[in-house]
Amino acid sequence: MNACDLLISAPWVLPIAPRNEALKDQAIVVTNGIIKAVGERGDLEARYSAQKTLNLTDHILMPGLVNAHGHSAMTLLRGAGEDQALQAWLEETIWPLEARMVNEQFVSLGSEIAMAEMLSSGTTTFSDMYFFPGSTAEVADRCGMRAQLASPIFKFPNTWSQNIDEGIHKALDLFHEYRHHSHVQIALGPHSAYSVDAEDLARIAMYADEVETPVQIHLHENAAEVEGAMAEAGKTWIQVLKDAGLLSPHLQAVHMTQISDADLELIVDSGTQVVHCPASNLKLASGYCDIERLRLAGVNVALGTDGAASNNTLNLFADAHLASLLAKRHRDDATVADAPSMLARMTLLGAQALGLEKKIGSLEVGKEADMIAVRTDALTMQPLYDPFAALLHGNAGAHVDHVFVRGK
Amino acid sequence: MNACDLLISAPWVLPIAPRNEALKDQAIVVTNGIIKAVGERGDLEARYSAQKTLNLTDHILMPGLVNAHGHSAMTLLRGAGEDQALQAWLEETIWPLEARMVNEQFVSLGSEIAMAEMLSSGTTTFSDMYFFPGSTAEVADRCGMRAQLASPIFKFPNTWSQNIDEGIHKALDLFHEYRHHSHVQIALGPHSAYSVDAEDLARIAMYADEVETPVQIHLHENAAEVEGAMAEAGKTWIQVLKDAGLLSPHLQAVHMTQISDADLELIVDSGTQVVHCPASNLKLASGYCDIERLRLAGVNVALGTDGAASNNTLNLFADAHLASLLAKRHRDDATVADAPSMLARMTLLGAQALGLEKKIGSLEVGKEADMIAVRTDALTMQPLYDPFAALLHGNAGAHVDHVFVRGK
Repeated sequence: MNACDLLISAPWVLPIAPRNEALKDQAIVVTNGIIKAVGERGDLEARYSAQKTLNLTDHILMPGLVNAHGHSAMTLLRGAGEDQALQAWLEETIWPLEARMVNEQFVSLGSEIAMAEMLSSGTTTFSDMYFFPGSTAEVADRCGMRAQLASPIFKFPNTWSQNIDEGIHKALDLFHEYRHHSHVQIALGPHSAYSVDAEDLARIAMYADEVETPVQIHLHENAAEVEGAMAEAGKTWIQVLKDAGLLSPHLQAVHMTQISDADLELIVDSGTQVVHCPASNLKLASGYCDIERLRLAGVNVALGTDGAASNNTLNLFADAHLASLLAKRHRDDATVADAPSMLARMTLLGAQALGLEKKIGSLEVGKEADMIAVRTDALTMQPLYDPFAALLHGNAGAHVDHVFVRGK
Repeated sequence: MNACDLLISAPWVLPIAPRNEALKDQAIVVTNGIIKAVGERGDLEARYSAQKTLNLTDHILMPGLVNAHGHSAMTLLRGAGEDQALQAWLEETIWPLEARMVNEQFVSLGSEIAMAEMLSSGTTTFSDMYFFPGSTAEVADRCGMRAQLASPIFKFPNTWSQNIDEGIHKALDLFHEYRHHSHVQIALGPHSAYSVDAEDLARIAMYADEVETPVQIHLHENAAEVEGAMAEAGKTWIQVLKDAGLLSPHLQAVHMTQISDADLELIVDSGTQVVHCPASNLKLASGYCDIERLRLAGVNVALGTDGAASNNTLNLFADAHLASLLAKRHRDDATVADAPSMLARMTLLGAQALGLEKKIGSLEVGKEADMIAVRTDALTMQPLYDPFAALLHGNAGAHVDHVFVRGK
């Protein structure tokens, strides 16, 4: 008998790698936060002596979800500026409220609420972009949630930084502070191509390359943004980012509702990651990111909730459900964005977008044990003809029962 | 002091009529299932002596929701035939399963599950179209839920009827059985224009007129259906229904993803009701019903979940949230399908579609007391800048705490 910390068994296990398998009566063995074995329950029970055993009787066990874009602290602005379009919403409601209200305490409290909401609906890893990222980092450190904090960089003075230099400086300081942290990493977060000048985008690319950390940016969120690029730069922001050396597998481009064929070629050639935030894009009438077109072109697409002020919830299961419905509608094809592929997008492909696919995103030996267990005995999950579909379309976020990050 | 059965007070009351009012610290007085007074809490407490008093401290009180189209018993087929298009889904999965499994017991059990799910997410009135409607009627009678059962009529032999005559005959029998029922009414449910011949549609129009009951039909669900009409009848099904005398304020046309300008004129002129089922239309890649275009033309549009096999939940709050996002996206305008108008669509306009607007749909004196109370202290509903938006976008279906039909 081998000793282990945790042996957890469930009637259904969805390892995600391989993608389409729904395994019955399996168990997972965890030691020091790492998955040591995945296999038949009886077999593993015979081979391992666990400090703690958890026999789940009505659950699907799967990897924790990756919410690849959000603004946690904005839970405190949930419901502000309803039924406004993007620019009006930002300029008339959100930015003035933020200028008045946002400080470290606001961010700390808002982030805590967001993490409670995300953990309770199955998200174990999130990416964040907001003022005072150090405050969000502290909460993530304390509550054990895995996080990528894209430290915000703007040319406009704001409550966090007076200019680009201060934004970059603070980001790099925070990066070094968390360099060796077990579950919190700092990325660079230029807010958008229209709020950072081209030469500064190039500097950000250089720094990101030097310290080997990802960059996340809002990109081509709506048509007006791209029209602005044409007026200001004579090319799309994607082309501006290409020239700045920012397009790469380490760039996470969020929204991307407008992609010309030329833009798509740049995205494909560079291996740039895309993050789709369907609820926010619809609610602000920003447009639609055609994830099936991107998939067919070979682009990796993760999912994000965006902030609570434009969603209004942080339940990634709900956004994945919506993303699947929208893709079927947009392509006039009910077979696309099928349930197994969407489950992969919420987990392993999300991890890949954040550069974490070697650590998390699937239940495989050697990976860190970020896992969730979802009850299947809810009315909306029964009968269980297809566990993938039950998770995607059955309001699974309301039925998450156990959440583990690194086995805890 | 006047005696009354129930005095219920809440920090927020949304009466829906008038549409945009969110009243603070109000109370509702109910006697014999009828709303006797709506007003300031202190004032009504001074004027009424209630047998039962309910002081809600963290709730929004509003009319119960109207789910204007569904197939309750299909909860037992939830998750069957995922990621299939409409015709394949019907012909390869649903119809063969139904032929094998559906009987009175199946319908009774499936309907009971559906009603539990609907009541728990705030729906107090639903419309249904399925085999053995008498079994669904019995469950609705027993559990006190308000229902319109559109008794199904097909030309094809099926487990419920061998032909049109039997379908009509059984529908009329059931109609007479429930003619004076307090909360269950029987409507006529020709399945679709392609499954009932034109002369039989005319007969159904005549019978519906004679007994004064509504007709509900699946209409223009997808493009293929309309192409079939052109091939078979040389005109759209809407035009066929016009010729059959079926278009009227008593016809509930469900789906309507394809509406030509000529079709729209017929719908407007006749006052025909439209029921929008956004999740089902997207999931089956059927198309999109442009509810803002209909609204601008003066057509009343209600909302439906459709059956659990194509949604997969029966939570009308979720469908209304989706309908709002889709309308904003479709019209490229974040200001349309605003929260107060969607709340009206879920309640009073839904009641109007079913011909029940004099009885229910708003909290007004003289109406029957179909009401729900939604908790506002959930993470997804806070902070409460705007109660309409919190209900529409804050996953309110998960936080319904009290449900009343006719004051019970």
